Amino acid sequence: MNFCSHCGGPVRLEVPAGDNRPRHVCERCGAIHYHNPKVVVGCIPEWEDRILLCRRAIEPKYGLWTLPAGFMENGETTAEGAARETLEEAGARVDILDLYSMISLPDINQVYLVFRAKLLHLDFTHGEESLEARLFAEQEIPWEDMAFRTIHRTLMHYYADRRNGSYALHVSDIFHKPR
Amino acid sequence: MNFCSHCGGPVRLEVPAGDNRPRHVCERCGAIHYHNPKVVVGCIPEWEDRILLCRRAIEPKYGLWTLPAGFMENGETTAEGAARETLEEAGARVDILDLYSMISLPDINQVYLVFRAKLLHLDFTHGEESLEARLFAEQEIPWEDMAFRTIHRTLMHYYADRRNGSYALHVSDIFHKPR
Repeated sequence: MNFCSHCGGPVRLEVPAGDNRPRHVCERCGAIHYHNPKVVVGCIPEWEDRILLCRRAIEPKYGLWTLPAGFMENGETTAEGAARETLEEAGARVDILDLYSMISLPDINQVYLVFRAKLLHLDFTHGEESLEARLFAEQEIPWEDMAFRTIHRTLMHYYADRRNGSYALHVSDIFHKPR
Repeated sequence: MNFCSHCGGPVRLEVPAGDNRPRHVCERCGAIHYHNPKVVVGCIPEWEDRILLCRRAIEPKYGLWTLPAGFMENGETTAEGAARETLEEAGARVDILDLYSMISLPDINQVYLVFRAKLLHLDFTHGEESLEARLFAEQEIPWEDMAFRTIHRTLMHYYADRRNGSYALHVSDIFHKPR
């Protein structure tokens, strides 16, 4: 951030009065600009014993597999965002079920929220951001070609829980830098 | 948003290529500026059969009661954010336990994440943003003087679950406009 999005004046990093960390503060109008983590919402669309994965047509991770997921937008609930991403990336309508995985990624300022979901039809297709979308049985999951550690971890929990016959929320963190 | 935070040029609302909703796009450098929901992290600090509430010293809702909670910051996990807010608002150290409540507020672009937590000491105080912090038994909870619907709802679930002897994650939404 170099300029104030409100007045166009220059900004500098300083700790505002009553605050305890540096913020971008406008030297002209005094506006304080906060930057906060983004939420990534997605789901595990289930059809009998198979789940829907999408192969990415965009960077990062072009060509690798993932669950339908993306940045939550203003004006929607977490479940609505997860359903919207599934429609956009896989042309698939789902009923969103329980929250299944919440993963904080503090070094890239993201929080993943992945729900279980019921896939409602088989005539899905793929959107512009996917090369293909298809159903996988557990033994077909392309574990080594997963786009993201969040998705890999979520699916590892998923199949372990399925073998145990009960699904529980999994909350965890992924760090990219040593602490 | 009136100006590009990158180059200081004017921005206009338009739907970028490959996108499906209006974004602030810089007329000079072409930067696309996204605006996404913010996460509010907090906790229910428990000490035996009582919980810790704070009375707000700032607007909005000056003088009303709430759980320690606030905007998640870059560089932290959801649990770290909840613990930090508790330290800032109530001078209290906690061990964060399970996620207990997730509430989407799509009309104000927020997602609340409230954890159960174990309060670690009784010599807490209150920070600059609180008038006081104190422990409440269930029959003392100031239900009519709660600052936020999210907190009121979370505590209603909490005491209902406690009577039933088992706590479960509660996911819900609060709308401010008709749909």
